[in-house]
Amino acid sequence: MKVLLVHAHPEPQSLNGSLRDFSVKRLEKAGHVVQVSDLYAMQWKATLDAADSTDRRADAHFDPSLDSKRAFENGTQSQDIAREQDKLRWADAVILQFPLWWFSMPAILKGWVERVYAYGFAYGVGEHSDARWGDRYGEGMLAGKRAMLIVTAGGWESHYGPRGINGPIDDILFPIQHGILYYPGFDVLPPFVVYRTSRMDEARFSGVCDALGQRLDDLWKTAPIPFRPQNAGAYRIPELTLRADIAPERSGFAAHIV
Amino acid sequence: MKVLLVHAHPEPQSLNGSLRDFSVKRLEKAGHVVQVSDLYAMQWKATLDAADSTDRRADAHFDPSLDSKRAFENGTQSQDIAREQDKLRWADAVILQFPLWWFSMPAILKGWVERVYAYGFAYGVGEHSDARWGDRYGEGMLAGKRAMLIVTAGGWESHYGPRGINGPIDDILFPIQHGILYYPGFDVLPPFVVYRTSRMDEARFSGVCDALGQRLDDLWKTAPIPFRPQNAGAYRIPELTLRADIAPERSGFAAHIV
Repeated sequence: MKVLLVHAHPEPQSLNGSLRDFSVKRLEKAGHVVQVSDLYAMQWKATLDAADSTDRRADAHFDPSLDSKRAFENGTQSQDIAREQDKLRWADAVILQFPLWWFSMPAILKGWVERVYAYGFAYGVGEHSDARWGDRYGEGMLAGKRAMLIVTAGGWESHYGPRGINGPIDDILFPIQHGILYYPGFDVLPPFVVYRTSRMDEARFSGVCDALGQRLDDLWKTAPIPFRPQNAGAYRIPELTLRADIAPERSGFAAHIV
Repeated sequence: MKVLLVHAHPEPQSLNGSLRDFSVKRLEKAGHVVQVSDLYAMQWKATLDAADSTDRRADAHFDPSLDSKRAFENGTQSQDIAREQDKLRWADAVILQFPLWWFSMPAILKGWVERVYAYGFAYGVGEHSDARWGDRYGEGMLAGKRAMLIVTAGGWESHYGPRGINGPIDDILFPIQHGILYYPGFDVLPPFVVYRTSRMDEARFSGVCDALGQRLDDLWKTAPIPFRPQNAGAYRIPELTLRADIAPERSGFAAHIV
């Protein structure tokens, strides 16, 4: 199978760098083909702006969505964007690997999402009617592919527990796993999270690699997070609220998981 | 009073640009002094990297936290970072204004947080002991100041409701309001959110401005979101989980609000 690993850490000689190297080796040893988008090494342009299409009049009004749509349709996206979209089309599975900075992904990776997820590619796809609200949340251009996060965090696991002060890790990652990965169609596997990264010695690193290796070996066996598909009947359209008879006692992020 | 408005939209002639101009005028008319950090206009560097300090050996290992700490202590941060920290020290209130892109802030603003929030400035402040776990979540360098988000979203309000498919807006914004603003000490006001931005005409824009104007007039009167302070007894230290007798029936983000 083909795996795209998108990596966002500025220092190759870091825990994140080591986990990337380990992951690539493990996947290749299992016979998979791996491409790495090492965003810092690529000097990835983080900021979405008017320069992201090649055919824009300098004085034209810039609309982030509509300019993206036009450039995607006309083949006038900047090369770096088109290349990453090709990698996404190519991949059977995509791994986003990053340190949790201020409870989300690093800016360089957020900017990868914003620029690569063009209108017509990752959103604005499919019909909007009384029966469907676009091909999204379970449908879309990336349907049939798997995705997974590998995340490192400085805080303790308890700080990210059900009653931990930072909030539960699953809720912190929901806007990424549901809003960025499930939205354009990925099946999203549970994340692999390493906590308390400042306390890493050889023995612990070896244990982390064992656990991560198992997750990579199981990439095509692990059950995805059972997010509810948008257009299969659980949601009213166009309000996009859960129907009254679906998990009537639940609200919040958790209500969107079967 | 002194207000810093951090603005993150690439097009001045946009809804966000208009809301920024309206806000500045309204605040100034009320006698406040306003500074704007217009990140796109400033060509703000979004990516945190080794170039963020001026005294680094080119071949040295880069540690995002420890390099930030050293540069902050030694006064060798790059000028753009130090300037934004000065603005934060100067301000009595800080407004972050942005379009919601992929359920979070634009990369350019995330990179502002990552780079300006230095170790020793926004985190890594105060003693860590059995009684306190740093000056954070209600304490810190920015304590005594107020903060508020002004956010625009393309989706409908119902999509962001308690059972809306995107998740409740308060939960989507929790990592920002609690994790980025409350963490270094801000009192965080409820957000001002504009939905369904593609359906904006003059009448609706006028209504939005009325509501936003009221919020700006009330900036020093509105009650902050009652997040629980970390070191005042509600949390076990160092586990940082809510004590068993505090809101025993609750978990998740909502448990951290009184």
